[in-house]
Amino acid sequence: MFVSVLRRGAMGMVAATIMTGAAMAQPGTQPVFVNTLMPQPAQLTVGAGGLAIAPGFSVSFDKTHDDRLEAAVAWALQRFKNQTGVIVQAAPAGAAGTLVVSVDGPGEAVQGVDEDESYTLEVTPQSVHLHAATDVGAMRGLETFLQLVQAGGSGFWLPAVSIQDAPRFKWRGLMIDVSRHFEPVGVIERTLDGMAEVKMNVFHWHLTDDQGFRIESKIFPKLTGMGSDGQYYTQEQAKEVVAYARGLGIRVVPEFDMPGHSTSWAVGYPELASAPGPFSIERKFGVFDPVMDPTKESTYEFLDKFIGEMAGIFPDAYMHIGGDENNGVEWKNNPRIQAFAAAHNLKGTAALQAYFNQRLLPILTKHGKKMIGWDEVLTPGLPKDVMVQSWRGFDSLAAGAKQGYSGILSAGYYLDHMQPASAHYRVDPLPANSNLTPEEAARILGGEACSWGEYVDPQTIDSRIWPRTAAIAERLWSPRNVTSEDDMYRRLAVESLRLEELGLTHLSQEWASLRELAGTQEIDPLRPLMAVLQPVEFDARSHWAQEHGVTTLSPLDNLADALPPDPPSRHDFGDLMSTYLQDPVGHPGEQAALASTFRSWSAEPGAMELMSASPQLAEALPRVEQLAELGTMGLEALSYLSSGIPASPGWRAQKLAILDEADKPLALTRFTVIQTMRDLVNEASR
Amino acid sequence: MFVSVLRRGAMGMVAATIMTGAAMAQPGTQPVFVNTLMPQPAQLTVGAGGLAIAPGFSVSFDKTHDDRLEAAVAWALQRFKNQTGVIVQAAPAGAAGTLVVSVDGPGEAVQGVDEDESYTLEVTPQSVHLHAATDVGAMRGLETFLQLVQAGGSGFWLPAVSIQDAPRFKWRGLMIDVSRHFEPVGVIERTLDGMAEVKMNVFHWHLTDDQGFRIESKIFPKLTGMGSDGQYYTQEQAKEVVAYARGLGIRVVPEFDMPGHSTSWAVGYPELASAPGPFSIERKFGVFDPVMDPTKESTYEFLDKFIGEMAGIFPDAYMHIGGDENNGVEWKNNPRIQAFAAAHNLKGTAALQAYFNQRLLPILTKHGKKMIGWDEVLTPGLPKDVMVQSWRGFDSLAAGAKQGYSGILSAGYYLDHMQPASAHYRVDPLPANSNLTPEEAARILGGEACSWGEYVDPQTIDSRIWPRTAAIAERLWSPRNVTSEDDMYRRLAVESLRLEELGLTHLSQEWASLRELAGTQEIDPLRPLMAVLQPVEFDARSHWAQEHGVTTLSPLDNLADALPPDPPSRHDFGDLMSTYLQDPVGHPGEQAALASTFRSWSAEPGAMELMSASPQLAEALPRVEQLAELGTMGLEALSYLSSGIPASPGWRAQKLAILDEADKPLALTRFTVIQTMRDLVNEASR
Repeated sequence: MFVSVLRRGAMGMVAATIMTGAAMAQPGTQPVFVNTLMPQPAQLTVGAGGLAIAPGFSVSFDKTHDDRLEAAVAWALQRFKNQTGVIVQAAPAGAAGTLVVSVDGPGEAVQGVDEDESYTLEVTPQSVHLHAATDVGAMRGLETFLQLVQAGGSGFWLPAVSIQDAPRFKWRGLMIDVSRHFEPVGVIERTLDGMAEVKMNVFHWHLTDDQGFRIESKIFPKLTGMGSDGQYYTQEQAKEVVAYARGLGIRVVPEFDMPGHSTSWAVGYPELASAPGPFSIERKFGVFDPVMDPTKESTYEFLDKFIGEMAGIFPDAYMHIGGDENNGVEWKNNPRIQAFAAAHNLKGTAALQAYFNQRLLPILTKHGKKMIGWDEVLTPGLPKDVMVQSWRGFDSLAAGAKQGYSGILSAGYYLDHMQPASAHYRVDPLPANSNLTPEEAARILGGEACSWGEYVDPQTIDSRIWPRTAAIAERLWSPRNVTSEDDMYRRLAVESLRLEELGLTHLSQEWASLRELAGTQEIDPLRPLMAVLQPVEFDARSHWAQEHGVTTLSPLDNLADALPPDPPSRHDFGDLMSTYLQDPVGHPGEQAALASTFRSWSAEPGAMELMSASPQLAEALPRVEQLAELGTMGLEALSYLSSGIPASPGWRAQKLAILDEADKPLALTRFTVIQTMRDLVNEASR
Repeated sequence: MFVSVLRRGAMGMVAATIMTGAAMAQPGTQPVFVNTLMPQPAQLTVGAGGLAIAPGFSVSFDKTHDDRLEAAVAWALQRFKNQTGVIVQAAPAGAAGTLVVSVDGPGEAVQGVDEDESYTLEVTPQSVHLHAATDVGAMRGLETFLQLVQAGGSGFWLPAVSIQDAPRFKWRGLMIDVSRHFEPVGVIERTLDGMAEVKMNVFHWHLTDDQGFRIESKIFPKLTGMGSDGQYYTQEQAKEVVAYARGLGIRVVPEFDMPGHSTSWAVGYPELASAPGPFSIERKFGVFDPVMDPTKESTYEFLDKFIGEMAGIFPDAYMHIGGDENNGVEWKNNPRIQAFAAAHNLKGTAALQAYFNQRLLPILTKHGKKMIGWDEVLTPGLPKDVMVQSWRGFDSLAAGAKQGYSGILSAGYYLDHMQPASAHYRVDPLPANSNLTPEEAARILGGEACSWGEYVDPQTIDSRIWPRTAAIAERLWSPRNVTSEDDMYRRLAVESLRLEELGLTHLSQEWASLRELAGTQEIDPLRPLMAVLQPVEFDARSHWAQEHGVTTLSPLDNLADALPPDPPSRHDFGDLMSTYLQDPVGHPGEQAALASTFRSWSAEPGAMELMSASPQLAEALPRVEQLAELGTMGLEALSYLSSGIPASPGWRAQKLAILDEADKPLALTRFTVIQTMRDLVNEASR
């Protein structure tokens, strides 16, 4: 490694003065460690002082290290350099570095569910010692190391800490649906970077669905040739993604959704389906009829070849076969299939699908894969080594666990529902009050955040996934008792910046999109309004989309696509209000801040002008007047509260009616501040 | 193509009411065409009314069209959809679409210097007709078509216009140095998108230099194996870039810098050099000694094989051999080379380099390539078909033209000099007052913007190239008399947004970097200061870099790296002031705007707090107080001017001294408003 003094000389000197713990302990000058770790580690002990980060910082490997670990350390130190300006040099041969990386062994060649991800990290005023059993554990510890870096005006430093860390759950995933909207490799890779930053370990790649078949098959070229609009991953690209993920300690679980959600297969291979066809790529969203024919041997011969081919690309032990939302229509309409069902005593769609799964299972086994599927795969007679991913909820998951099935939770982690991070954060795959035995509880392996693709494209995907997924990642990694939402949001604001430094665009996309929608760079007048708007929830959007004939080809250029699902305003404003309302007279600072916010909500002529001139923003124009009403209401409520005279019931009723009206979806947006404003109005009338 | 109603029903109805020119001509409701074309076309005639963009908009091809043209139209219509929400459908077979694309033929298989890029575009209230002789001409016209789209609150429309357009210069290039800092393929491709948007047609790829060898050679694998730190393009990637550029009508001219600037070659192949070696990749910036040995036959045997290999990757007629900044040190220090020079009567470095070039030329010719090199290649006896790229200036270029050499201008277009767009805009490769004959003038083919790589990385490259390069692109495309800087800046602000829509990050990078440097999302307090700062010019930065031991490995994480080189504040503030100063008393609106700006410059405690807490920003802290002084000075000057009483000579002297002090570089930044403030102070004292 090349050695250089990186930052200005001045800082080197200042850094030297805080080089030792003793110096850092001087009264009045001691830097304070601010814990912004995300996820929080299992155990953290904070010591005195810290280690100044200054030129000369070096690294050494203890024990063994393979190429993967060396690359992981180089990547971490590259980011360390970008953050602190200090190039870390290799320690002289035989000498210990400032950072010592000590790893017992590389771990499994193909990372498994039981991979040891634990690590310990000891920072003293002299050195940093990272120890892990495996490469993957070391990767987790390196992320913690980077997150520990503290900035001060005089330089960067690391706090003296002792961390013993290991994940609460083994399976911490993110599913991305690339069928309904395709996402290029670059998007997938930067998402993997983000996942690794928050210690997630499974990328679940939803590669096929009605709206597109996204992975090349050389045996069945018409799958993408006719079913993808040319938007798919070559096998080489898929292997590249698998290798990239492996370098980050992330498993890649591919999903091939069957027997339903399979229109895109049938476009090129109609013989797979249960109706005569022809089929075309589905452009709408919802549940559709095309379903594989479970009665034909040729179906299983096709799948045998296909799964064998995919097994050569995806080395993970698991393969996801979907299995969800088969409406059974094509089966019911096909007399041959009905005759087959009758002959085999298979009553109804579920029984026929169970038969399909039981035929599929030995094919997966033959190719060295374990089966995972959505709730619906859980049918009587299913072997116990099939794993269940629950979109229905904890009860469904727990029922499976009681029957002996392993499972992961996704209900509560659907990112397209546009819920705040706090809502996801409250969902625990294994709540304290579950009535599972320890053996049953052990079958709940973790969970997965899900990014379904109806209203997500390469431009907006980052802001749909991040930063909320970091809160889910913490739920799945950190101890059960890490539950403070205020503290989560405080750390999430910092985590969001770290994710941006990795190249994710969730923060900058909002303003880039607003510039695009407004057609000008001068969008400051929009700020107060946009800060308190968020997209409507999934159901409202779906309803609107159906009414407006929205398809996979429609542009995602609504105001709602620009807005982040959980803007800081919601929590921050609520937090400010809740402090104020504890004792209105005793919080003049909070009162002033609230008054200033309310005044900033007055109808801004510049905003109205910008919005009127933009076809995409004009529809949201009534939001300007609504916000002004909220501002006036807020100032009035502050007056009541500071005067000590309660507002009249009439005032309260009128204001609550205004709030109800403002709470309705408009131009696919909702206000983030309505509930907080209701609290204020109610309190002012008490 | 799939047909769908894309935007809300409401707009469809409104759009229908402005569907005809007659409706658009209604008094008071007629939308006004705002010309934001960049570059400006050769001829533009604006008619009455326009064409509403509404569902049902269709496209058809007249005459022939090949795959490339079809892809280019699909790409344009994809962007049209993202902009307007309207999906363009294919017209029924045999029928004319709303947009008719009429192209005589595909053009050359390998795009040449003389490719016909002309087109005509006729927009009437009923249809759009695009005609071009070649695919490339059609691509240019499609960009104009997209730039014509006008937005209003009620929908999008196209103005009725008649455009006859063709470039003034044949060679409109952008050079990117990927040796000093490597740029991934994704960065190159989004840059190519931006180039096509402003009708540039040559991507000059500076692939080798002292600091890194960036293109894979299978014959000489140690070139990248030892000379690139693993950061290079595979041949497959390079071919992908060439194909991508071809799809945009852009030629790719590779540069292999020799005989100087060749350290990275010598790392793996020291026998190429004129000193014994060993050599290592150069980490510093400047001019270095390693130079190829022109006396050995083995040098030419090596280059013959290498150039033959590269000719298989890069189909363009030209190959750039660099040829610049050979300091001759290794030649002077090598007795064998000196003996060779004496024996061949080659006096001095230039003569020896001329010999090298004359040996190189037949090798290029053998592999079907014409030679292009920097000024220094222009030595006595050089064949006339060698082309010269001038970094020295117009006089050097004109001298070549008089001798019979074709050439392009790059002096004045160096993006790393951190000059404003207006400065580049004023540089004409063929000024009206040149004393060249028409025949000599015809040898000046155009110019190239140059992005040298010392202080550019993938995060910052977009803001270094864009939007300023769009002004250079206009200089090279539009008629000589298109020179209004005010109008250029007005259109550049819109062009900047269009470039952002293509995926370039020049606008969002500034705030992303500032968030990163400040370590928080709450950076609003920094806005007034950051808006009036820009990076120092190249020389000042180089000086600082040498003092601080900066290398290719140093992070580019200074405040200056976040700031755009030519922020809107500079021109906009100057423009506002100049209007005001024409008649201070007669411009109360301008006076109020200036006063408001000056007040926003007061020392903001929030800004000081943020900057103090950030190691990278702390150094720029004095800028806060300086800006406050400028604000106070400004308010005082406004008082003098509105009172009609001139300020005293003492006041003027004191303020000019403050301005001189503030004009000095600090933390690698400069203020953008100093000259304008000087104008104000002088005027207030008159």
